[in-house]
Amino acid sequence: MKQKMIIYDTPAGPYPARVRIALAEKNMLSSVQFVRINLWKGEHKKPEFLAKNYSGTVPVLELDDGTLIAECTAITEYIDALDGTPTLTGKTPLEKGVIHMMNKRAELELLDPVSVYFHHATPGLGPEVEFYQNKEWGLRQRDKALHGMHYFDTVLRERPYVAGDSFSMADITVIAGLIFAAIVKLQVPEECEALRAWYKRMQQRPSVKKLLEIRSKSS
Amino acid sequence: MKQKMIIYDTPAGPYPARVRIALAEKNMLSSVQFVRINLWKGEHKKPEFLAKNYSGTVPVLELDDGTLIAECTAITEYIDALDGTPTLTGKTPLEKGVIHMMNKRAELELLDPVSVYFHHATPGLGPEVEFYQNKEWGLRQRDKALHGMHYFDTVLRERPYVAGDSFSMADITVIAGLIFAAIVKLQVPEECEALRAWYKRMQQRPSVKKLLEIRSKSS
Repeated sequence: MKQKMIIYDTPAGPYPARVRIALAEKNMLSSVQFVRINLWKGEHKKPEFLAKNYSGTVPVLELDDGTLIAECTAITEYIDALDGTPTLTGKTPLEKGVIHMMNKRAELELLDPVSVYFHHATPGLGPEVEFYQNKEWGLRQRDKALHGMHYFDTVLRERPYVAGDSFSMADITVIAGLIFAAIVKLQVPEECEALRAWYKRMQQRPSVKKLLEIRSKSS
Repeated sequence: MKQKMIIYDTPAGPYPARVRIALAEKNMLSSVQFVRINLWKGEHKKPEFLAKNYSGTVPVLELDDGTLIAECTAITEYIDALDGTPTLTGKTPLEKGVIHMMNKRAELELLDPVSVYFHHATPGLGPEVEFYQNKEWGLRQRDKALHGMHYFDTVLRERPYVAGDSFSMADITVIAGLIFAAIVKLQVPEECEALRAWYKRMQQRPSVKKLLEIRSKSS
Protein backbone atom coordinates (compact mmCIF):
# COMPACT_ATOMS: atom_id res chain seq x y z
CA MET A 1 0.00 0.00 0.00
CA LYS A 2 1.27 3.40 -0.92
CA GLN A 3 2.14 5.55 2.04
CA LYS A 4 0.12 8.72 2.67
CA MET A 5 2.32 11.67 3.47
CA ILE A 6 1.44 15.04 4.95
CA ILE A 7 3.42 18.18 4.24
CA TYR A 8 2.97 21.24 6.41
CA ASP A 9 3.84 24.29 4.37
CA THR A 10 2.51 27.36 2.63
CA PRO A 11 1.99 27.19 -1.15
CA ALA A 12 3.64 30.53 -1.88
CA GLY A 13 6.76 29.96 0.21
CA PRO A 14 10.18 29.78 -1.47
CA TYR A 15 11.45 26.98 0.80
CA PRO A 16 8.25 24.94 0.35
CA ALA A 17 8.82 25.42 -3.41
CA ARG A 18 11.98 23.31 -3.11
CA VAL A 19 10.07 20.28 -1.88
CA ARG A 20 7.08 20.83 -4.18
CA ILE A 21 9.34 20.94 -7.24
CA ALA A 22 11.17 17.83 -6.02
CA LEU A 23 7.85 16.02 -5.53
CA ALA A 24 6.72 17.01 -9.03
CA GLU A 25 10.02 15.77 -10.47
CA LYS A 26 9.40 12.41 -8.78
CA ASN A 27 5.71 12.30 -9.83
CA MET A 28 4.72 12.18 -6.19
CA LEU A 29 2.60 15.30 -5.74
CA SER A 30 -0.62 13.27 -5.68
CA SER A 31 0.53 11.09 -2.78
CA VAL A 32 0.91 14.11 -0.52
CA GLN A 33 -1.71 15.92 1.53
CA PHE A 34 -0.73 19.54 2.07
CA VAL A 35 -1.66 21.27 5.32
CA ARG A 36 -1.38 25.02 5.21
CA ILE A 37 0.61 26.86 7.87
CA ASN A 38 -0.14 30.58 8.00
CA LEU A 39 3.25 32.25 8.24
CA TRP A 40 1.71 35.74 8.34
CA LYS A 41 0.02 34.76 11.60
CA GLY A 42 3.26 33.23 12.85
CA GLU A 43 1.78 29.75 13.11
CA HIS A 44 5.25 28.30 12.44
CA LYS A 45 6.55 29.87 15.65
CA LYS A 46 3.76 28.55 17.91
CA PRO A 47 4.36 25.63 20.34
CA GLU A 48 2.15 23.24 18.38
CA PHE A 49 4.26 23.65 15.26
CA LEU A 50 7.58 23.85 17.13
CA ALA A 51 6.80 20.38 18.47
CA LYS A 52 6.91 19.21 14.85
CA ASN A 53 10.01 21.20 13.92
CA TYR A 54 12.22 22.73 16.61
CA SER A 55 13.58 25.26 14.10
CA GLY A 56 10.12 26.65 13.35
CA THR A 57 10.40 26.50 9.57
CA VAL A 58 8.30 25.07 6.75
CA PRO A 59 8.08 22.64 5.05
CA VAL A 60 7.82 19.62 7.36
CA LEU A 61 7.02 16.14 6.12
CA GLU A 62 4.99 13.78 8.31
CA LEU A 63 4.91 10.08 7.52
CA ASP A 64 2.17 7.53 8.24
CA ASP A 65 3.82 6.44 11.47
CA GLY A 66 4.18 10.01 12.74
CA THR A 67 7.86 10.39 11.83
CA LEU A 68 8.64 14.03 11.11
CA ILE A 69 11.26 15.14 8.62
CA ALA A 70 12.09 18.84 8.45
CA GLU A 71 14.64 20.68 6.28
CA CYS A 72 14.31 20.78 2.50
CA THR A 73 17.51 18.89 1.76
CA ALA A 74 16.51 16.10 4.16
CA ILE A 75 13.00 15.82 2.71
CA THR A 76 14.46 15.77 -0.80
CA GLU A 77 16.91 13.01 0.18
CA TYR A 78 13.98 11.01 1.54
CA ILE A 79 11.63 11.35 -1.42
CA ASP A 80 14.43 10.94 -3.96
CA ALA A 81 15.47 7.63 -2.40
CA LEU A 82 11.94 6.18 -2.07
CA ASP A 83 11.74 4.60 -5.54
CA GLY A 84 15.31 3.34 -5.48
CA THR A 85 16.28 5.57 -8.39
CA PRO A 86 17.71 8.87 -7.22
CA THR A 87 17.50 11.56 -9.90
CA LEU A 88 17.93 14.70 -7.79
CA THR A 89 20.60 13.89 -5.18
CA GLY A 90 23.14 11.91 -7.19
CA LYS A 91 23.92 8.27 -7.86
CA THR A 92 27.73 8.05 -7.72
CA PRO A 93 29.89 9.34 -4.86
CA LEU A 94 31.10 12.17 -7.12
CA GLU A 95 27.57 13.19 -8.11
CA LYS A 96 26.44 13.14 -4.47
CA GLY A 97 29.41 15.24 -3.42
CA VAL A 98 29.07 17.86 -6.14
CA ILE A 99 25.27 18.10 -5.87
CA HIS A 100 25.40 18.52 -2.08
CA MET A 101 28.15 21.12 -2.42
CA MET A 102 26.24 23.18 -4.97
CA ASN A 103 22.97 22.76 -3.08
CA LYS A 104 24.54 24.03 0.11
CA ARG A 105 26.24 26.85 -1.76
CA ALA A 106 22.87 27.85 -3.25
CA GLU A 107 21.51 28.06 0.31
CA LEU A 108 24.53 29.83 1.73
CA GLU A 109 25.14 32.37 -1.02
CA LEU A 110 21.67 33.02 -2.39
CA LEU A 111 18.51 31.59 -0.82
CA ASP A 112 19.36 32.04 2.86
CA PRO A 113 20.77 35.59 2.42
CA VAL A 114 17.59 36.65 0.57
CA SER A 115 15.56 35.17 3.42
CA VAL A 116 17.57 37.02 6.07
CA TYR A 117 17.21 40.23 4.06
CA PHE A 118 13.42 39.72 3.95
CA HIS A 119 13.11 39.01 7.67
CA HIS A 120 15.56 41.66 8.88
CA ALA A 121 15.68 44.59 6.46
CA THR A 122 12.11 44.65 5.09
CA PRO A 123 8.81 44.44 7.03
CA GLY A 124 9.05 40.67 6.48
CA LEU A 125 6.06 38.83 7.92
CA GLY A 126 4.96 41.88 9.91
CA PRO A 127 5.67 43.23 13.39
CA GLU A 128 3.93 40.43 15.27
CA VAL A 129 6.11 37.76 13.72
CA GLU A 130 9.36 39.72 13.19
CA PHE A 131 9.79 40.69 16.81
CA TYR A 132 13.55 41.10 16.37
CA GLN A 133 15.19 42.64 13.32
CA ASN A 134 18.82 43.49 12.65
CA LYS A 135 18.63 45.77 9.63
CA GLU A 136 22.36 46.18 9.10
CA TRP A 137 22.77 42.41 8.99
CA GLY A 138 19.82 42.09 6.63
CA LEU A 139 21.25 44.64 4.20
CA ARG A 140 24.60 42.86 4.15
CA GLN A 141 22.83 39.63 3.30
CA ARG A 142 21.07 41.35 0.40
CA ASP A 143 24.47 42.32 -0.99
CA LYS A 144 25.72 38.79 -0.42
CA ALA A 145 22.79 37.42 -2.42
CA LEU A 146 23.59 39.76 -5.31
CA HIS A 147 27.17 38.51 -5.30
CA GLY A 148 25.75 35.00 -5.22
CA MET A 149 23.78 35.69 -8.40
CA HIS A 150 27.00 36.69 -10.14
CA TYR A 151 28.66 33.53 -8.86
CA PHE A 152 25.91 31.26 -10.21
CA ASP A 153 25.99 33.17 -13.46
CA THR A 154 29.68 32.26 -13.78
CA VAL A 155 28.88 28.63 -13.01
CA LEU A 156 26.10 28.52 -15.61
CA ARG A 157 28.34 29.98 -18.31
CA GLU A 158 30.26 26.72 -18.17
CA ARG A 159 27.59 24.07 -17.67
CA PRO A 160 23.90 23.57 -18.41
CA TYR A 161 22.88 22.91 -14.81
CA VAL A 162 24.09 24.14 -11.43
CA ALA A 163 25.83 20.89 -10.47
CA GLY A 164 26.88 19.73 -13.96
CA ASP A 165 25.22 18.04 -16.91
CA SER A 166 21.93 17.09 -15.22
CA PHE A 167 19.12 18.79 -13.38
CA SER A 168 19.44 18.24 -9.61
CA MET A 169 18.44 19.39 -6.16
CA ALA A 170 21.02 22.19 -6.55
CA ASP A 171 19.07 23.70 -9.47
CA ILE A 172 15.92 23.58 -7.35
CA THR A 173 17.61 25.53 -4.56
CA VAL A 174 18.82 28.25 -6.94
CA ILE A 175 15.28 28.42 -8.40
CA ALA A 176 13.92 28.92 -4.86
CA GLY A 177 16.51 31.65 -4.37
CA LEU A 178 15.31 33.49 -7.47
CA ILE A 179 11.65 33.02 -6.48
CA PHE A 180 12.42 34.61 -3.11
CA ALA A 181 14.50 37.34 -4.77
CA ALA A 182 11.49 38.27 -6.95
CA ILE A 183 9.28 38.47 -3.83
CA VAL A 184 11.62 41.00 -2.22
CA LYS A 185 12.09 42.80 -5.57
CA LEU A 186 15.76 41.90 -5.86
CA GLN A 187 16.36 41.73 -9.59
CA VAL A 188 18.82 39.43 -11.25
CA PRO A 189 21.37 41.87 -12.74
CA GLU A 190 21.10 42.34 -16.52
CA GLU A 191 24.68 41.21 -17.03
CA CYS A 192 23.98 37.81 -15.47
CA GLU A 193 22.95 36.51 -18.88
CA ALA A 194 23.69 32.85 -18.30
CA LEU A 195 21.75 32.82 -15.03
CA ARG A 196 18.80 34.58 -16.70
CA ALA A 197 18.80 32.20 -19.67
CA TRP A 198 19.01 29.18 -17.35
CA TYR A 199 16.11 30.50 -15.23
CA LYS A 200 14.00 31.00 -18.36
CA ARG A 201 14.69 27.37 -19.28
CA MET A 202 13.88 26.21 -15.76
CA GLN A 203 10.53 28.03 -15.82
CA GLN A 204 9.56 25.87 -18.81
CA ARG A 205 10.31 22.68 -16.92
CA PRO A 206 6.96 20.99 -16.03
CA SER A 207 7.78 20.65 -12.30
CA VAL A 208 8.68 24.34 -12.03
CA LYS A 209 5.88 25.51 -14.30
CA LYS A 210 3.31 23.72 -12.13
CA LEU A 211 4.78 25.25 -8.98
CA LEU A 212 4.73 28.76 -10.40
CA GLU A 213 1.08 28.31 -11.36
CA ILE A 214 0.19 27.26 -7.82
CA ARG A 215 2.13 30.21 -6.44
CA SER A 216 0.41 32.74 -8.70
CA LYS A 217 -3.00 31.39 -7.67
CA SER A 218 -2.31 31.37 -3.95
CA SER A 219 -0.56 34.70 -3.52
CA MET B 1 44.82 2.24 -7.96
CA LYS B 2 43.66 4.02 -4.87
CA GLN B 3 42.94 7.67 -5.45
CA LYS B 4 45.10 10.26 -3.67
CA MET B 5 43.01 13.02 -2.13
CA ILE B 6 44.06 16.41 -0.84
CA ILE B 7 42.20 18.23 1.91
CA TYR B 8 42.81 21.91 2.50
CA ASP B 9 42.03 22.66 6.12
CA THR B 10 43.45 23.57 9.48
CA PRO B 11 43.91 20.77 12.04
CA ALA B 12 42.37 22.68 14.94
CA GLY B 13 39.27 23.89 13.10
CA PRO B 14 35.82 22.71 14.22
CA TYR B 15 34.46 22.38 10.66
CA PRO B 16 37.57 20.48 9.50
CA ALA B 17 36.96 18.20 12.52
CA ARG B 18 33.73 17.03 10.88
CA VAL B 19 35.53 15.68 7.84
CA ARG B 20 38.50 14.33 9.80
CA ILE B 21 36.19 12.35 12.10
CA ALA B 22 34.25 11.06 9.08
CA LEU B 23 37.51 10.00 7.40
CA ALA B 24 38.63 8.19 10.57
CA GLU B 25 35.24 6.42 10.77
CA LYS B 26 35.76 5.22 7.19
CA ASN B 27 39.43 4.24 7.80
CA MET B 28 40.47 6.67 5.12
CA LEU B 29 42.71 9.12 6.96
CA SER B 30 45.85 7.59 5.44
CA SER B 31 44.67 8.15 1.86
CA VAL B 32 44.46 11.88 2.39
CA GLN B 33 47.19 14.50 2.18
CA PHE B 34 46.36 17.50 4.34
CA VAL B 35 47.41 20.96 3.22
CA ARG B 36 47.28 23.57 5.93
CA ILE B 37 45.42 26.83 5.37
CA ASN B 38 46.32 29.52 7.89
CA LEU B 39 43.01 31.02 8.96
CA TRP B 40 44.70 33.49 11.31
CA LYS B 41 46.40 35.02 8.28
CA GLY B 42 43.12 34.98 6.36
CA GLU B 43 44.46 32.60 3.69
CA HIS B 44 40.92 31.25 3.21
CA LYS B 45 39.75 34.69 2.06
CA LYS B 46 42.53 35.21 -0.52
CA PRO B 47 41.84 34.88 -4.28
CA GLU B 48 43.93 31.71 -4.62
CA PHE B 49 41.77 29.89 -2.09
CA LEU B 50 38.49 31.48 -3.20
CA ALA B 51 39.16 29.93 -6.62
CA LYS B 52 38.94 26.56 -4.86
CA ASN B 53 35.90 27.45 -2.75
CA TYR B 54 33.80 30.52 -3.54
CA SER B 55 32.50 30.60 0.03
CA GLY B 56 36.01 30.91 1.49
CA THR B 57 35.66 28.16 4.08
CA VAL B 58 37.64 25.08 5.03
CA PRO B 59 37.74 22.15 4.53
CA VAL B 60 37.92 21.62 0.77
CA LEU B 61 38.56 18.22 -0.81
CA GLU B 62 40.54 18.03 -4.05
CA LEU B 63 40.45 14.85 -6.10
CA ASP B 64 43.08 13.43 -8.46
CA ASP B 65 41.47 15.00 -11.50
CA GLY B 66 41.27 18.43 -9.88
CA THR B 67 37.60 18.21 -8.90
CA LEU B 68 36.94 20.31 -5.81
CA ILE B 69 34.32 19.46 -3.21
CA ALA B 70 33.63 22.01 -0.48
CA GLU B 71 31.11 21.90 2.39
CA CYS B 72 31.38 19.29 5.15
CA THR B 73 28.10 17.55 4.38
CA ALA B 74 29.02 17.22 0.71
CA ILE B 75 32.50 15.85 1.49
CA THR B 76 30.97 13.41 3.98
CA GLU B 77 28.43 12.24 1.38
CA TYR B 78 31.31 11.66 -1.05
CA ILE B 79 33.61 9.72 1.25
CA ASP B 80 30.76 7.76 2.82
CA ALA B 81 29.61 6.55 -0.60
CA LEU B 82 33.08 5.60 -1.92
CA ASP B 83 33.18 2.05 -0.56
CA GLY B 84 29.56 1.33 -1.44
CA THR B 85 28.63 0.91 2.23
CA PRO B 86 27.35 4.13 3.73
CA THR B 87 27.64 4.14 7.52
CA LEU B 88 27.36 7.87 8.24
CA THR B 89 24.71 9.24 5.87
CA GLY B 90 22.03 6.54 5.93
CA LYS B 91 21.13 3.51 3.85
CA THR B 92 17.31 3.61 3.67
CA PRO B 93 15.23 6.62 2.59
CA LEU B 94 14.11 7.10 6.19
CA GLU B 95 17.66 6.97 7.54
CA LYS B 96 18.85 9.45 4.92
CA GLY B 97 15.98 11.81 5.70
CA VAL B 98 16.39 11.74 9.46
CA ILE B 99 20.19 11.95 9.38
CA HIS B 100 20.15 14.91 6.99
CA MET B 101 17.50 16.64 9.10
CA MET B 102 19.45 16.23 12.33
CA ASN B 103 22.73 17.12 10.64
CA LYS B 104 21.26 20.34 9.28
CA ARG B 105 19.64 21.08 12.63
CA ALA B 106 23.02 20.62 14.32
CA GLU B 107 24.46 23.20 11.94
CA LEU B 108 21.53 25.59 12.22
CA GLU B 109 20.99 25.47 15.97
CA LEU B 110 24.47 24.83 17.35
CA LEU B 111 27.58 24.79 15.17
CA ASP B 112 26.82 27.75 12.88
CA PRO B 113 25.54 30.01 15.71
CA VAL B 114 28.71 29.33 17.72
CA SER B 115 30.75 30.19 14.63
CA VAL B 116 28.85 33.45 14.09
CA TYR B 117 29.32 34.31 17.77
CA PHE B 118 33.07 33.70 17.42
CA HIS B 119 33.43 35.81 14.28
CA HIS B 120 31.10 38.64 15.32
CA ALA B 121 31.08 39.02 19.11
CA THR B 122 34.60 37.96 20.05
CA PRO B 123 37.93 39.04 18.48
CA GLY B 124 37.52 36.00 16.22
CA LEU B 125 40.48 35.56 13.85
CA GLY B 126 41.72 39.09 14.59
CA PRO B 127 41.11 42.53 13.05
CA GLU B 128 42.79 41.78 9.73
CA VAL B 129 40.45 38.88 8.99
CA GLU B 130 37.28 40.04 10.78
CA PHE B 131 36.97 43.30 8.90
CA TYR B 132 33.21 43.44 9.57
CA GLN B 133 31.58 42.46 12.84
CA ASN B 134 27.96 42.72 13.99
CA LYS B 135 28.21 42.22 17.72
CA GLU B 136 24.48 42.28 18.46
CA TRP B 137 23.91 39.55 15.90
CA GLY B 138 26.82 37.54 17.29
CA LEU B 139 25.46 37.69 20.83
CA ARG B 140 22.02 36.53 19.69
CA GLN B 141 23.67 33.59 17.98
CA ARG B 142 25.45 32.69 21.22
CA ASP B 143 22.07 32.52 22.94
CA LYS B 144 20.67 30.48 20.08
CA ALA B 145 23.52 27.98 20.48
CA LEU B 146 22.77 27.64 24.20
CA HIS B 147 19.13 26.90 23.36
CA GLY B 148 20.41 24.42 20.82
CA MET B 149 22.35 22.58 23.52
CA HIS B 150 19.14 22.19 25.51
CA TYR B 151 17.38 20.91 22.41
CA PHE B 152 20.02 18.25 21.72
CA ASP B 153 19.95 17.32 25.41
CA THR B 154 16.22 16.60 25.04
CA VAL B 155 16.90 14.52 21.93
CA LEU B 156 19.62 12.51 23.65
CA ARG B 157 17.40 11.75 26.63
CA GLU B 158 15.36 9.60 24.25
CA ARG B 159 17.92 7.97 21.99
CA PRO B 160 21.58 6.93 22.13
CA TYR B 161 22.63 8.96 19.09
CA VAL B 162 21.53 12.26 17.56
CA ALA B 163 19.67 10.69 14.62
CA GLY B 164 18.53 7.48 16.30
CA ASP B 165 20.07 4.13 17.19
CA SER B 166 23.33 4.51 15.28
CA PHE B 167 26.23 6.90 15.12
CA SER B 168 25.95 9.16 12.05
CA MET B 169 27.05 12.38 10.38
CA ALA B 170 24.59 14.20 12.68
CA ASP B 171 26.55 13.14 15.78
CA ILE B 172 29.73 14.41 14.14
CA THR B 173 28.17 17.83 13.55
CA VAL B 174 27.04 18.13 17.18
CA ILE B 175 30.56 17.08 18.28
CA ALA B 176 31.99 19.86 16.08
CA GLY B 177 29.53 22.26 17.70
CA LEU B 178 30.74 21.34 21.18
CA ILE B 179 34.39 21.55 20.09
CA PHE B 180 33.74 25.09 18.81
CA ALA B 181 31.74 25.94 21.96
CA ALA B 182 34.75 24.94 24.08
CA ILE B 183 37.03 27.18 22.00
CA VAL B 184 34.83 30.20 22.67
CA LYS B 185 34.36 29.13 26.31
CA LEU B 186 30.67 28.46 25.97
CA GLN B 187 30.00 25.73 28.52
CA VAL B 188 27.42 23.02 28.10
CA PRO B 189 24.95 23.80 30.93
CA GLU B 190 25.16 21.47 33.94
CA GLU B 191 21.53 20.46 33.56
CA CYS B 192 22.13 19.13 30.05
CA GLU B 193 23.04 15.76 31.54
CA ALA B 194 22.15 13.61 28.56
CA LEU B 195 24.15 15.81 26.19
CA ARG B 196 27.13 15.76 28.56
CA ALA B 197 26.98 11.98 28.99
CA TRP B 198 26.70 11.47 25.23
CA TYR B 199 29.69 13.78 24.62
CA LYS B 200 31.77 11.86 27.15
CA ARG B 201 30.92 8.65 25.25
CA MET B 202 31.73 10.28 21.93
CA GLN B 203 35.13 11.39 23.19
CA GLN B 204 35.98 7.73 23.80
CA ARG B 205 35.15 6.82 20.22
CA PRO B 206 38.42 6.11 18.33
CA SER B 207 37.66 8.53 15.48
CA VAL B 208 36.92 11.37 17.89
CA LYS B 209 39.74 10.49 20.28
CA LYS B 210 42.25 10.66 17.44
CA LEU B 211 40.89 14.01 16.30
CA LEU B 212 41.07 15.51 19.77
CA GLU B 213 44.69 14.35 20.10
CA ILE B 214 45.58 16.04 16.81
CA ARG B 215 43.79 19.20 17.93
CA SER B 216 45.56 19.36 21.29
CA LYS B 217 48.95 18.96 19.57
CA SER B 218 48.34 21.61 16.93
CA SER B 219 46.75 24.33 19.00
